[in-house]
Amino acid sequence: MVKTIEWTDGRVRMLDQTLLPREVKYLDCTDYHMVAEGIKKLCIRGAPAIGIAAAMGIALGAQQIRTGDFNEFMKGLEGVFNTLLSTRPTAVNIQWAVERIRKFLTERRHEPVDKLKAMLIEEANRVLNEDIEINRAIGEWGAQFIKDGDTVITHCNAGSLATGGYGTATGPIRVAIEQGKKIQVIADETRPVLQGCRLTAWELMQDNIPVTLITDNTAGAILRKGEINLAIVGTDRTVANGDVANKIGTYSLAVLCRENNVPFYVAAPLSSIDFSMPSGDLIPIEERGPEEVTHIFGRHIAPEGVKVRNLAFDVTPAKYITGIITEKGVFRPGDLHKLNEKGADLEKIMLKAKY
Amino acid sequence: MVKTIEWTDGRVRMLDQTLLPREVKYLDCTDYHMVAEGIKKLCIRGAPAIGIAAAMGIALGAQQIRTGDFNEFMKGLEGVFNTLLSTRPTAVNIQWAVERIRKFLTERRHEPVDKLKAMLIEEANRVLNEDIEINRAIGEWGAQFIKDGDTVITHCNAGSLATGGYGTATGPIRVAIEQGKKIQVIADETRPVLQGCRLTAWELMQDNIPVTLITDNTAGAILRKGEINLAIVGTDRTVANGDVANKIGTYSLAVLCRENNVPFYVAAPLSSIDFSMPSGDLIPIEERGPEEVTHIFGRHIAPEGVKVRNLAFDVTPAKYITGIITEKGVFRPGDLHKLNEKGADLEKIMLKAKY
Repeated sequence: MVKTIEWTDGRVRMLDQTLLPREVKYLDCTDYHMVAEGIKKLCIRGAPAIGIAAAMGIALGAQQIRTGDFNEFMKGLEGVFNTLLSTRPTAVNIQWAVERIRKFLTERRHEPVDKLKAMLIEEANRVLNEDIEINRAIGEWGAQFIKDGDTVITHCNAGSLATGGYGTATGPIRVAIEQGKKIQVIADETRPVLQGCRLTAWELMQDNIPVTLITDNTAGAILRKGEINLAIVGTDRTVANGDVANKIGTYSLAVLCRENNVPFYVAAPLSSIDFSMPSGDLIPIEERGPEEVTHIFGRHIAPEGVKVRNLAFDVTPAKYITGIITEKGVFRPGDLHKLNEKGADLEKIMLKAKY
Repeated sequence: MVKTIEWTDGRVRMLDQTLLPREVKYLDCTDYHMVAEGIKKLCIRGAPAIGIAAAMGIALGAQQIRTGDFNEFMKGLEGVFNTLLSTRPTAVNIQWAVERIRKFLTERRHEPVDKLKAMLIEEANRVLNEDIEINRAIGEWGAQFIKDGDTVITHCNAGSLATGGYGTATGPIRVAIEQGKKIQVIADETRPVLQGCRLTAWELMQDNIPVTLITDNTAGAILRKGEINLAIVGTDRTVANGDVANKIGTYSLAVLCRENNVPFYVAAPLSSIDFSMPSGDLIPIEERGPEEVTHIFGRHIAPEGVKVRNLAFDVTPAKYITGIITEKGVFRPGDLHKLNEKGADLEKIMLKAKY
């Protein structure tokens, strides 16, 4: 499997996903500004992956701070945090990574700064390795809802390329296949950036998982024909009431699934759940430049000077969501907030597949 | 306004819409096979426009038949009919044109064949000119549903480029603007062939009509934000029960409109209504090659060898449709069949805007 991101030789190496599938090329980031640029330009994308990139970017930025004083060190890091936080507003994982690292350092404030710098590299690698474990757990919990012979639709890329590896939405698909189930995947191409076409279809083909590419417009017709058994997508930020922000077009797919009685699942590692936000309508939605819509691989496809609206994400209200697949189990969106409550009996509220 | 199609100097000249908006180039068809190829390759598209192209293609084919005998002439024309009918199965307008011409000739069977050949050219031009009048009437009937300040969403291109001129779905938009209403249009880009981006946005910009281009994925989010007042789309075939076949993605847009209480109108000239077919599920849906999805303007964007499903159209059940705008008035889809009944009091069943 292609590595999305790794720490190597004192640098952060990320696969440049803007060039896929035409070219497999890596971007070697020698300072944290390059990591931030890589996130902004979508060389790396996907909520879990940019959480990992943020943790690695912080570790990289930390090495550049010349001080032996903890408070000075933290002050220097604030600049790194802010640069990374400003790259993409919708996914909560950068914020999650920053908070995790801040807590990690605060708890170790009495260690020498030089030691902390080394520990941050270890911690960033831990974030990466934990992510793969989490995806594996999501896969195990989610696979029960995929039956032998099923066709699963997914939107955008919440696969290994969007994570440390294995994938969130593709986790249950990969586990179902390991369980010997014969299944196939329908990948929405996911305009404007075509992550479904360029990334999801590509990574599934690399692993010989049967996949069919469709335009986003085709999902409704195929759902109406009864050819799809379930949908699984990822999320950039899921909030306390179970509303889900994800790639633009997710809301449409969810509405179409409900209209056709097809279960709609969201694979959400806890790192992408923002329990502090009560409703999806409060999630900041990134609007990106028109070029993503007017150009494809640098080629102009639209009328010169056309006005464009390019929302990168949308919000799917909880009512359209059958279940949220986390590393702790699968839950109704309305029960999600209980994961943040002490003493909640998760076993009792967990969704289980009925056969 | 750019001419979509015309009969000139014994040839059929059509704008090659596959090259728009990068290039404005005409295709001069010197025989009916070239017309059929032009239809098949989408140089000309849109139900009314391919109806006109079929009538002109028949006139062109007729000139090539060397006989003075009416029955021989009709036998020769059958080959022309079949070639044209085989180009695109979903739109009913080619069939409509063939039937119109067959009836026209049968009623004039006692005229000399040479005279009939000349009359077919006149008749093809009549089809073109009537189409413009019909669009104008659709515009007049439909404009009452567009209020000052409204934002109208449309899908694909049912504009002047899809017709003899003026457009079906754009008819009400153009009339509303002539009435002094300040409105704006949201154009879905309409993958895979990007007719919304390349054609609708382009033709509206040519006429200084405010238009914003979005990806198909964005329609749902904008509808949910309450930014759209109504939808108007065209149709390739509307059937007796009010079900509508139109460009892939129309069904999704209709479902999203209903979910957000936004009225959804279909502009349908009578030539695109197939009263002989009782239900939309019987409409043949054209599946096209994978290249439209895997390539854009000749550039490969998808993984090599990926499996693709490329449905060109979908069917929107009548229940999602607020009104069908014809040249005879606007009707509930459930009342549509009455247009084909003798003595129906259309004035009584006609939908009227409530202010």
